[in-house]
Amino acid sequence: MKKGIGHYSIGDPFDNFILIKSASRGVASNGKPFLTLILRDATGEIEAKLWDITKEDEDVFIPEQIVKLSGEVNQFRGKPQLKIFTIRPSQTTDGVQVSDFVEKAPVNKDVLMGKLTEAIFEMHNPSLQRIVRALIKKYQEALLTYPAATKNHHEYVSGLAHHVVSMLALAKELHALYPETNKDLLYAGIILHDLGKVKELSGVVTTSYTLEGKLIGHIPIMVEEIGNTAKELQIDSEEVLILQHLILSHHGKAEWGSPKAPLIREAELLHLIDLIDARMNTLNRALGKVKPGEFTERLFALDNRAFYKPLFEGNS
Amino acid sequence: MKKGIGHYSIGDPFDNFILIKSASRGVASNGKPFLTLILRDATGEIEAKLWDITKEDEDVFIPEQIVKLSGEVNQFRGKPQLKIFTIRPSQTTDGVQVSDFVEKAPVNKDVLMGKLTEAIFEMHNPSLQRIVRALIKKYQEALLTYPAATKNHHEYVSGLAHHVVSMLALAKELHALYPETNKDLLYAGIILHDLGKVKELSGVVTTSYTLEGKLIGHIPIMVEEIGNTAKELQIDSEEVLILQHLILSHHGKAEWGSPKAPLIREAELLHLIDLIDARMNTLNRALGKVKPGEFTERLFALDNRAFYKPLFEGNS
Amino acid sequence: MKKGIGHYSIGDPFDNFILIKSASRGVASNGKPFLTLILRDATGEIEAKLWDITKEDEDVFIPEQIVKLSGEVNQFRGKPQLKIFTIRPSQTTDGVQVSDFVEKAPVNKDVLMGKLTEAIFEMHNPSLQRIVRALIKKYQEALLTYPAATKNHHEYVSGLAHHVVSMLALAKELHALYPETNKDLLYAGIILHDLGKVKELSGVVTTSYTLEGKLIGHIPIMVEEIGNTAKELQIDSEEVLILQHLILSHHGKAEWGSPKAPLIREAELLHLIDLIDARMNTLNRALGKVKPGEFTERLFALDNRAFYKPLFEGNS
Amino acid sequence: MKKGIGHYSIGDPFDNFILIKSASRGVASNGKPFLTLILRDATGEIEAKLWDITKEDEDVFIPEQIVKLSGEVNQFRGKPQLKIFTIRPSQTTDGVQVSDFVEKAPVNKDVLMGKLTEAIFEMHNPSLQRIVRALIKKYQEALLTYPAATKNHHEYVSGLAHHVVSMLALAKELHALYPETNKDLLYAGIILHDLGKVKELSGVVTTSYTLEGKLIGHIPIMVEEIGNTAKELQIDSEEVLILQHLILSHHGKAEWGSPKAPLIREAELLHLIDLIDARMNTLNRALGKVKPGEFTERLFALDNRAFYKPLFEGNS
Amino acid sequence: MKKGIGHYSIGDPFDNFILIKSASRGVASNGKPFLTLILRDATGEIEAKLWDITKEDEDVFIPEQIVKLSGEVNQFRGKPQLKIFTIRPSQTTDGVQVSDFVEKAPVNKDVLMGKLTEAIFEMHNPSLQRIVRALIKKYQEALLTYPAATKNHHEYVSGLAHHVVSMLALAKELHALYPETNKDLLYAGIILHDLGKVKELSGVVTTSYTLEGKLIGHIPIMVEEIGNTAKELQIDSEEVLILQHLILSHHGKAEWGSPKAPLIREAELLHLIDLIDARMNTLNRALGKVKPGEFTERLFALDNRAFYKPLFEGNS
Amino acid sequence: MKKGIGHYSIGDPFDNFILIKSASRGVASNGKPFLTLILRDATGEIEAKLWDITKEDEDVFIPEQIVKLSGEVNQFRGKPQLKIFTIRPSQTTDGVQVSDFVEKAPVNKDVLMGKLTEAIFEMHNPSLQRIVRALIKKYQEALLTYPAATKNHHEYVSGLAHHVVSMLALAKELHALYPETNKDLLYAGIILHDLGKVKELSGVVTTSYTLEGKLIGHIPIMVEEIGNTAKELQIDSEEVLILQHLILSHHGKAEWGSPKAPLIREAELLHLIDLIDARMNTLNRALGKVKPGEFTERLFALDNRAFYKPLFEGNS
Repeated sequence: MKKGIGHYSIGDPFDNFILIKSASRGVASNGKPFLTLILRDATGEIEAKLWDITKEDEDVFIPEQIVKLSGEVNQFRGKPQLKIFTIRPSQTTDGVQVSDFVEKAPVNKDVLMGKLTEAIFEMHNPSLQRIVRALIKKYQEALLTYPAATKNHHEYVSGLAHHVVSMLALAKELHALYPETNKDLLYAGIILHDLGKVKELSGVVTTSYTLEGKLIGHIPIMVEEIGNTAKELQIDSEEVLILQHLILSHHGKAEWGSPKAPLIREAELLHLIDLIDARMNTLNRALGKVKPGEFTERLFALDNRAFYKPLFEGNS
Repeated sequence: MKKGIGHYSIGDPFDNFILIKSASRGVASNGKPFLTLILRDATGEIEAKLWDITKEDEDVFIPEQIVKLSGEVNQFRGKPQLKIFTIRPSQTTDGVQVSDFVEKAPVNKDVLMGKLTEAIFEMHNPSLQRIVRALIKKYQEALLTYPAATKNHHEYVSGLAHHVVSMLALAKELHALYPETNKDLLYAGIILHDLGKVKELSGVVTTSYTLEGKLIGHIPIMVEEIGNTAKELQIDSEEVLILQHLILSHHGKAEWGSPKAPLIREAELLHLIDLIDARMNTLNRALGKVKPGEFTERLFALDNRAFYKPLFEGNS
Repeated sequence: MKKGIGHYSIGDPFDNFILIKSASRGVASNGKPFLTLILRDATGEIEAKLWDITKEDEDVFIPEQIVKLSGEVNQFRGKPQLKIFTIRPSQTTDGVQVSDFVEKAPVNKDVLMGKLTEAIFEMHNPSLQRIVRALIKKYQEALLTYPAATKNHHEYVSGLAHHVVSMLALAKELHALYPETNKDLLYAGIILHDLGKVKELSGVVTTSYTLEGKLIGHIPIMVEEIGNTAKELQIDSEEVLILQHLILSHHGKAEWGSPKAPLIREAELLHLIDLIDARMNTLNRALGKVKPGEFTERLFALDNRAFYKPLFEGNS
Repeated sequence: MKKGIGHYSIGDPFDNFILIKSASRGVASNGKPFLTLILRDATGEIEAKLWDITKEDEDVFIPEQIVKLSGEVNQFRGKPQLKIFTIRPSQTTDGVQVSDFVEKAPVNKDVLMGKLTEAIFEMHNPSLQRIVRALIKKYQEALLTYPAATKNHHEYVSGLAHHVVSMLALAKELHALYPETNKDLLYAGIILHDLGKVKELSGVVTTSYTLEGKLIGHIPIMVEEIGNTAKELQIDSEEVLILQHLILSHHGKAEWGSPKAPLIREAELLHLIDLIDARMNTLNRALGKVKPGEFTERLFALDNRAFYKPLFEGNS
Repeated sequence: MKKGIGHYSIGDPFDNFILIKSASRGVASNGKPFLTLILRDATGEIEAKLWDITKEDEDVFIPEQIVKLSGEVNQFRGKPQLKIFTIRPSQTTDGVQVSDFVEKAPVNKDVLMGKLTEAIFEMHNPSLQRIVRALIKKYQEALLTYPAATKNHHEYVSGLAHHVVSMLALAKELHALYPETNKDLLYAGIILHDLGKVKELSGVVTTSYTLEGKLIGHIPIMVEEIGNTAKELQIDSEEVLILQHLILSHHGKAEWGSPKAPLIREAELLHLIDLIDARMNTLNRALGKVKPGEFTERLFALDNRAFYKPLFEGNS
Repeated sequence: MKKGIGHYSIGDPFDNFILIKSASRGVASNGKPFLTLILRDATGEIEAKLWDITKEDEDVFIPEQIVKLSGEVNQFRGKPQLKIFTIRPSQTTDGVQVSDFVEKAPVNKDVLMGKLTEAIFEMHNPSLQRIVRALIKKYQEALLTYPAATKNHHEYVSGLAHHVVSMLALAKELHALYPETNKDLLYAGIILHDLGKVKELSGVVTTSYTLEGKLIGHIPIMVEEIGNTAKELQIDSEEVLILQHLILSHHGKAEWGSPKAPLIREAELLHLIDLIDARMNTLNRALGKVKPGEFTERLFALDNRAFYKPLFEGNS
């Protein structure tokens, strides 16, 4: 059985299919062109150099191309590098596809969609429910496949829906503990809060920011979408304004991209639930890579802290 | 000839019409109710106490009511206070109206509208021109009467249009000095940058923030409006996105309410032109109230600085 | 039936028992001494002046004394003030006691103790459980009666235990959603995180900071206590260090009083749970005082924001 | 026709004269000394390595030496590098001079001097005019050749005068729009605001900070110079103090090097005009290097933002 | 024997000479003018109201006038107020003078001048010594009488010289402990660091900021003075630049008014010595006013902290 | 006579004993393993590569092993690198020991201990003296050998005691200048302020942070130690609390790791003395490495400033 590239050690031979994430051309000190490839599968990435390339190589070894590669994992300036012995593009008969090489949410799309549907079904407020339903319908495919971010947390296929579903579970419990909160509003805010990312980000495999993402950002994008949807559905009640406020304020303060700080109880709670779920996702994945008694790498999204994994165990 | 309340000194008698800006009920130490009135005309405001009021007084002396008042300007805890001898509500036969008592832009509405029309006429880019034209048409009345803010700068009738027209003049000269800049884009950005204030603020005489203003704010409001207008006009080119970015970024940075900092040359320039015109308006009005050799009061919008007015003169 | 002082309006007569929270002596402009009293019951506070006092009055009308008072609610500089007609200290035969006049947690002490015991019983890790048990035993009486703070959140009798119990319920659900977390560690951290407040604060009725509270603070106090307890119980495993870290870091960052930011997953989660419960307590109580369509007063603990209470309803 | 080094692509052969900006000696892994050269012409810079150098090479290939070089543009660690085939110092017969290899303002020195003279001629206030005239005379040569900075904006020959002249044009228009402003004061402030840079910076070709620049800086240097000049001219009126304040405050706030923030209207305007001209210079040059639809490199002087160049055109 | 106003309690009769620090006219609710006087002696200040004043009273009771006053110390809104029974201006025959009523340094001017002379005498570097000597000579009178600030530390007659002499003593010891430091440079920096205050502040008794103080400030004033003095003495060595840097950087960083942070060892040390002496002066005086076991008032210059005075004593 | 590695130039041959500070394994581009060694003696460090290593080499060339090495100092990417010709582990007969290769305080341990004993002997307050004596006894060995930090200041053998002794000398003089200060308290605070570092840091030669250091830090560690010691000595007076406060607050503010800012005069002074001694140590050592007229490298602990060493001399 084949293990993923994320689990290879220095010196290990490699003979497997792998996906090209990016390819950039350079000229070596001998004057000959070469390619720097970033290769990835669902477990991680590695760099490789393809020396003395031809014009055809440049056309073949491009991003999102799967290749069959044999070589060896070496080390270059402290980082692993895959030394290439042979390389060829995959063929249809190889039976491999791009989706085999990307990380995915631990829950599949059907389950995620089921959970979303269930939450919408629980809602009683018709205005909120209709807006949410309309927007989910409009962006369903993207919602179910997009990552929640390019890095930091839920940065994998279906990460966006996974994040939303996880937050809904949290919201359900928090509503039980603080019954004064308006569950419908909280659900609507959670489901839509990051949906603007389907326009802010470029796609699923090699995710980057779109022009709209760079110039406007997912928060104002979604505020506008909610306004449009409400207009189309001829909903003109206070719910629209409040829901737009929840989206607008969910980053918590101006410095973090919310021109208005939360001024509604459920907006404050949405912000905190978002924080918890994003941080727990980051922490669980980082701690999953280290042994008890070790520290994780520094985590950018957690103020560059490295976290310690205790030696002892507690609950069974 | 009658001078305005802003020019009275301690000890001066007062006998004139004046507008009630706000009225709040209190109970005196003798147990009797009284009203604290804030009275204003176009030159300033003053506080007054109306003692031993009846139930009818409370119904009559309300905000936006003009009154005929005779009294004397006294001082109370270091601030002027108008001592009331007699007071009565104005009657139709008095020939006074609310608009006589509020500060107005130094340029009248027709001139302002003329300048706006002229600027729009100068534009060549059809997408930008059509969006601007549609929004001006939609909000023309409010644009020509609203203040640009509740305080700090251009906080008077037609202040919004006055601010825009002044910025347009500046933009025209800056475009001549830096011809690489796109004048159409700059004009469009200037005309629309604060137009969301007609929804953010409550009105002309006793201006406060609307619920929409508090929860969303004029920037996202206008981003959404531009999106809607473009959709109605079936304009789908890059101009829409860029124009939305200009509005979104015109406060310059996240802490000041722009979730995106300017990333377009004209967006940066729009931010700086806005800064200059707002600050010059504030400074000119504050310095207009003091004599050479004196300092102004502290100006909140200029980081609480008090400005000095030099003794010497320069240009003729 | 008697309503509380928090529900009186200007002009209402008052004739009831009430508790003196503070009393300070002044000299009136006529040269005669008087007392400024802050009076309170479970629903709020009000100021009152007792004029022309004798030496005996000064000895009788002191903090924590209950008085029978008849008077009228007036207004002085915009704030309510209770005008005193007659006043006398309460007598044993009046059947009133201090605890009748202070706000209390909505759950009683026995229920709170039950919940705490239940949580400790759920723990499997013997080191953590023994330390928690020892400290709870040592400070049980204070833990069950102290407020969690002098203001901002849970600032009422049994507020500390109420806060802890509410956080435990939240932790239980979060552990179910994120099963990688160590529930024992989380429980131990929650139960002890603010226990240092029983030394930081002076007591239950007229709570202020002790000298130890001002110079050391509840966080280092508790870190030391855990160290001592572990030594007494001869526990020397990593659990002690980790638990001390949870307490030390629970304010989240240095500026907020935690010399170490959380570096353990459960420390991060403890910080976030604390944040949610404190904010929900503040928000629910502030929103409980206003009607739909209104804003709360500015809330210091939430960055001075005023929150809006929407008009519509959601969940049934 | 020869294009500049800033326009070469990887792989291009190079055969031309070029200026050595800096040269530093290293020892290669084979133990032999080599030189790392930074070479420049008016369009940009490139690095080159000269291997196996002799003692004479070290004496010949020094900063401000022009060389004739043939080679090829390669790439080394992602950055272009010029591979040297042959290199020799230029001779007088080659007819090349240092000034051919440095970037210059788009306007020549005579025109710049003319504009300055014109502005001084427009001034009516004799005190201000005489101080400005004396200082211009004292530093004329340097003012007309120095850059305005070592990097970020106007970092080319005559950049300082170009910046000043551009700001004067802006000031003229702003004075027309805000006639309350004192044009003489504004002109004097603009002409002198950065003149201290002729002492802060080391020169024109290979500009660095002088010791005086590092320990005192151009702002206090100029404040002192104005004081001295006024004393020599026996001018003792308020103009001197006000003009010193304009220089002292022109960076706008303490964090940016102005121990006093602007407290004079013209000081505030000087700060804003400086900001606009510096930013437009930076932006226009950065956008001039990219195509429509692209982003510029990150601009340090604009908070590290990368700016987008729209696809559409506006004004004709 | 007479005690000072700073030691009176509420209810005490007052019958003594006292100095008017400021006098401002008001109009009472009965329409009659009155004066609010701030009265002071060497131990403190108190407010008083002089009712129903005549035109002559206004001309007589002015700042820096000594008065003979009998009255009583009352309380008004929590602050002491002196109730006036009789008041008259002092006469020459009363034998009182302004200097009797202001706080003075605990060391007299001759001693301070002696210490200064001694320090200058210790210096070996002729350039530094001559500059210091020239400036001390020029400003000797003011240096020996001015306060070091309007508030916060050494805010009394001769406070400036007292601060300098105290810092010199500290510098002498620090030089002994860190013999690498240049004592001459340190002494020169200390003696001149705040000398610009004799131009920044208005005088000794009723100290405020001059226009030069507000627009330029004592730091650039002194940098310029040193430059002038060096020019007059024809000193052109590096010492001048370094000494100017010490003055320029002595506030430690840009936000605190030093456009250059210390870049010379002695500049860093000067900053720290200044900090210690200012803070010890503030603390000793504040703690001198409270009893063991009490906290001082909040100290603005120490980040608004209130300091505790321990109960125990240590060294004999 | 042998000079230290810190004084070698590029090209110098090396033939001497040296200590391995760290060793990390890599794999070369030819697939063979190698070691990157950081070698050090008392004067500095240098990197070296040991190519083509065997399994035995990996076991032999480990941290804290002394080696005999002959080679040559080369340069690699701008930094010196030691090219290895021959290398062998030292033998007992070589007569070298680890302590020969580490930097040491300029004063030996006996002298340092003598100074400490003297200071303790000067103390009169029995509570403070007994606590200090007990803790010094407990940690004497570590106190006399540990560095005061891993970098920035006093980062050498006995650096901690050297720092303390230097601060005590300063405190003695400051107490003489400000006799109101409590010398016993100051001495106790100085001696104990950084003693927690013996638990925070791992040791003397290859110093890093312990787990306790990372999760708790030397400040809370010492606060707890003082509490324990006082309990053991049955001291329960205010001195304990105040001394704990001095330790807790000695970093000056929350952002720097002190959850309480100094609220006791001696705490404020302790903070300032610590600052002075740390900065003087850093500055003196950095300036000791450069010539007059040069700047030091940037000093991280002094906000990344580079300091200038003047050309002139002052005191004899």
